[in-house]
Amino acid sequence: MDLSRSKLAVEVDRLLESGLVVADGLAPSRGGRRSHNIRLAPTLRFLGVDIGATSIDVAVTNAELEVLGHLNQPMDVREGPVAVFEHVLSMAAKLKASGIAEGFDGAGIGVPGPVRFPEGVPVAPPIMPGWDGFPVREALSQELGCPVMVDNDVNLMAMGEQHAGVARSVGDFLCVKIGTGIGCGIVVGGEVYRGTTGSAGDIGHIQVEPGGRACACGNRGCLEAHFSGAALAGDAEQAAREGRSAQLAARLEAAGRLTAEDVSAAAAAGDAVALELIREGGMRLGQVIAGLVSFFNPGLVVIGGGVTGLGHTLLASVRTQVYRQSLPLATGNLPIVLGELGPAAGAIGAARLISDHVFSPA
Amino acid sequence: MDLSRSKLAVEVDRLLESGLVVADGLAPSRGGRRSHNIRLAPTLRFLGVDIGATSIDVAVTNAELEVLGHLNQPMDVREGPVAVFEHVLSMAAKLKASGIAEGFDGAGIGVPGPVRFPEGVPVAPPIMPGWDGFPVREALSQELGCPVMVDNDVNLMAMGEQHAGVARSVGDFLCVKIGTGIGCGIVVGGEVYRGTTGSAGDIGHIQVEPGGRACACGNRGCLEAHFSGAALAGDAEQAAREGRSAQLAARLEAAGRLTAEDVSAAAAAGDAVALELIREGGMRLGQVIAGLVSFFNPGLVVIGGGVTGLGHTLLASVRTQVYRQSLPLATGNLPIVLGELGPAAGAIGAARLISDHVFSPA
Repeated sequence: MDLSRSKLAVEVDRLLESGLVVADGLAPSRGGRRSHNIRLAPTLRFLGVDIGATSIDVAVTNAELEVLGHLNQPMDVREGPVAVFEHVLSMAAKLKASGIAEGFDGAGIGVPGPVRFPEGVPVAPPIMPGWDGFPVREALSQELGCPVMVDNDVNLMAMGEQHAGVARSVGDFLCVKIGTGIGCGIVVGGEVYRGTTGSAGDIGHIQVEPGGRACACGNRGCLEAHFSGAALAGDAEQAAREGRSAQLAARLEAAGRLTAEDVSAAAAAGDAVALELIREGGMRLGQVIAGLVSFFNPGLVVIGGGVTGLGHTLLASVRTQVYRQSLPLATGNLPIVLGELGPAAGAIGAARLISDHVFSPA
Repeated sequence: MDLSRSKLAVEVDRLLESGLVVADGLAPSRGGRRSHNIRLAPTLRFLGVDIGATSIDVAVTNAELEVLGHLNQPMDVREGPVAVFEHVLSMAAKLKASGIAEGFDGAGIGVPGPVRFPEGVPVAPPIMPGWDGFPVREALSQELGCPVMVDNDVNLMAMGEQHAGVARSVGDFLCVKIGTGIGCGIVVGGEVYRGTTGSAGDIGHIQVEPGGRACACGNRGCLEAHFSGAALAGDAEQAAREGRSAQLAARLEAAGRLTAEDVSAAAAAGDAVALELIREGGMRLGQVIAGLVSFFNPGLVVIGGGVTGLGHTLLASVRTQVYRQSLPLATGNLPIVLGELGPAAGAIGAARLISDHVFSPA
């Protein structure tokens, strides 16, 4: 632990006093004086909250960050922070009522935009009107009566995959999240890298086509405008209306609108147009990831988010582009894989964030 | 220093024994027992070597990394490591003979390609045939009789600008070097980030134009193929031959070939074609830097290398592109500036690299 015996003893006493760890009897004798065992307090409960653009995931974990309960519900982040946190609090209350927690010892919150990390405040979030400057940490820690930390949702997905998913034991990696928009978590030497103003990983607005599609940000040709959950749904609706895909047209007829999940389902059923949309999107995404791989030389690229239902078609397309465009030295041993934790990744990362904070020396 | 008094004493004793620091009398009394002063040994000498594609810079510094002597000479890195290091050793001998050093306490070496950093060995360097796997550190430390560290030249330029140039006190920044090729030094939390296989920052092969110019790497549309010292010289020769610029034609006639410096001189003399080449190149470079700024959210972007003679025309063009394409949150307080140390940046960074190593606990 790189701590002297005396410092370690002070630290352990502090943890015992705080109730974060508890005594757990004596270790088996190994000849000398028997050591005291300690363990993480079995009653500790962390709340992990992952607010996406269109849904909320809330998970309760124990001190080992095992998920004891998990709820997901659709929501529109544009409802604003007050409405969204009412949902969050009622979901947390529901989980409590199920008997898995009496209270929370800390909560981690992910939001789908850049965050001024030290203050726990979202800043200028493009898809989140009404959230700019909202004191998420302060407001929620008052409501929940426990310490709260706030981060960008993609950073938390990266922490989740690192803690319990596909990125265990990898020091430097990228975690690309494809949801309504696109973002990237950057991990350097095991730590999330947030950048100078908390906007690192904001790859949705990297230009993939000069003079390309108009983007919500005001520019043209941004990655998000050409490929993201929202762009994919839009492309699919257009294909359906133009009569290019009977499958997508039937789904559009039935639901009144299409989502990335519809494209995913149509592709799984063999629809050629849906498959082509996913392939094209993968090429766009691969084009950007290829540049990031050359620049960052990661040990792993994880692709996650709602659109991972697009699965291996998307992955194949991304891989082709990256292995073709980046130099062999950077791609030689580079796995490009889907996340392992699915929709729970962000909530687990959020629990990890707050647990790291709670266990850190003051 | 985040060290206990006893550990500090042990460390100081080690440094005194090693001769790296020397006693420097007693500090003025402040009431209690007077402290012992120590200082860096005034006889310490570090050798900083920056091997580019077409020239070598060698500098000798004292322990404070002040440059006591500096030599530059043209060379072709394709001559291979044996020939190149003969130049380096004779330059080092010349500096010694001038009386500024009796011997060297360490040497830092920069090479224009990726390096397996722990072993000090260049790996698969695209523009350096004959260098792959050459044991630079071992060979030179035997020749020089001192510890040697080897790194990519762009990383050393970043360390130089951080130590003594424009990037002092900036934690997270990018340092883009435009020479024969293009590379980028990445500094995270004050430390150079080298990536999983030592190729981080290799931005010369990021695609700027799908289906664009053929690149030496085998792909098409790489940044380097469209803008770099070599590409600029090629474009200028073509313009001269096509009779589009009398200035460039005269220079080509006189020298038999053109270099980036010729373009720079022609631009300074108001040549419209030369200015346009620089502007176009700056747009290409800016396109890539805009993506990196969105991704990395740096606190500073430094532009250096031989081509900085292109100066403010280039800079203006890069800035326009970055401020237009990256999101305001990432560019709001982002200075994009030229390096301050000119051709000495790499050699100073090399001295810094080896001095950090020499002063580190074993």
